[in-house]
Amino acid sequence: MTPDRLSRQIRFIAEVDKLKEIVRQTLCTQSRRQENDAEHSWHLALLVIVLAEHSNHQPLDVLRVLKMVILHDLVEIDAGDTFAYDTARMADQHERECRAADRIFGLLPEDQCAEFRALWDEFEARQTPEARFAAAVDRFQPMLLNCLTEGAAWRQHGVTSDRVIARNQHIQNGSAALWDHARRMIDEAVRAGHLEK
Amino acid sequence: MTPDRLSRQIRFIAEVDKLKEIVRQTLCTQSRRQENDAEHSWHLALLVIVLAEHSNHQPLDVLRVLKMVILHDLVEIDAGDTFAYDTARMADQHERECRAADRIFGLLPEDQCAEFRALWDEFEARQTPEARFAAAVDRFQPMLLNCLTEGAAWRQHGVTSDRVIARNQHIQNGSAALWDHARRMIDEAVRAGHLEK
Repeated sequence: MTPDRLSRQIRFIAEVDKLKEIVRQTLCTQSRRQENDAEHSWHLALLVIVLAEHSNHQPLDVLRVLKMVILHDLVEIDAGDTFAYDTARMADQHERECRAADRIFGLLPEDQCAEFRALWDEFEARQTPEARFAAAVDRFQPMLLNCLTEGAAWRQHGVTSDRVIARNQHIQNGSAALWDHARRMIDEAVRAGHLEK
Repeated sequence: MTPDRLSRQIRFIAEVDKLKEIVRQTLCTQSRRQENDAEHSWHLALLVIVLAEHSNHQPLDVLRVLKMVILHDLVEIDAGDTFAYDTARMADQHERECRAADRIFGLLPEDQCAEFRALWDEFEARQTPEARFAAAVDRFQPMLLNCLTEGAAWRQHGVTSDRVIARNQHIQNGSAALWDHARRMIDEAVRAGHLEK
C-alpha cells in the first residue's frame, strides 16, 4: 500500500463532500426544505436494506445494489440535479453526466475508478437485476416523500398522475410489489387532491 | 408476502426521514453549514466502499459494515446527537440510545427489527472486525471534515490535540493505515493553528 494510494482515496472522499450541496426538488418530510443528494443517497441505501426481499429477482447481490445507490448521484456534483419531469434539461443529461463521471471517478486509483465507473454505467443501463432494483428505489423514494408532503413538488411543477405513472412505471421491472404499492399511493394522492389527475 | 409487512417497512422508511434534521457539530466543506446525520451516514458508506482495503482484518464483510453505518445513527432521531467531546451528555448517552433503538427498530417486522438491533449492538460493542472498521470511519470522517474547515468545530469547543488523539485512537483498532494518516492530519492541523496543542 503506497501512501499515495490512500492520499488519492482521501482526496476523492473530500471532493464528494460537495454532494451535500446539490439540492433536489423533493422536500424532506419534517422541515419541508429541499432534500439534497447526499441525504437522498443515504435514504436509498436504507430502502435497499429494508426492501431487498421485494426484488423480483432473488437472490439479489445487495452489496452491489448498495454500492450503486451510494455512488449513483456523484455525477451531479458537476452536472447538477435534473428534475425527473424536466424533459428539456433531460436531453443532454447523459452527456453532461458522462463528463462528470470521467472527472470525479478519475480522482481515484485506476482500479477503483474502473470499478465505480462500471457500477455507475450498470445503474444507468438498468439491465441487470441489481440495477433494476436500484432504479426502482431511486424512483420510489421521491414518490414517497412527495406523498408525505401533500404532493408539494408535483403541485409546484404542475405534474399530473399520468406523467407520474409514465415516469415511474419501470419500478415494476425491479419490484412488482413496490410498484403495486406505488400505484395505490398515486391513487390516494389523486383522491386527496395532492396530485392532479 | 403480506401487504401489512410492506406497509410496516414503508412506515419505518418514512419515520427515519427525520434523520435529515439531526444536526452535528461538524461543518460541511462547501457551505460551512452543520452536517446532518443522514449526510454523515451517506459519507461513511462512501468511505467504507473506498477504504475497505485498509481494514486491519481481511477479508472484511463489507455488506455488514455498510448496513452498520447506514443504521448507526438512527437512534439519534430520539436521543439527539452527542458531540464527541461533550463528556457530560455522554454519561447517559447509551441508555437514551437504547430506548430509541427499541422504539425505532420496533417499527419494523420482527425479523428485521432483530437483525437491525443486532447490527446496532455489534456496532456499539466494537468487538468484531466489521464493527471496528465501521467505528474507525465514523471517527475518521469528522476529523477529515474538521481539517478541511480549518478546525472550526474543534476551535468552537476549545478541543485540544491530546483530546482528539485520546478520543479517536481506536481508529487504529479498525485500520492502522487510517490512524497513521489521521495522526499526520492532526499534526498538520496543529502546525496550521487549526487545533490547539
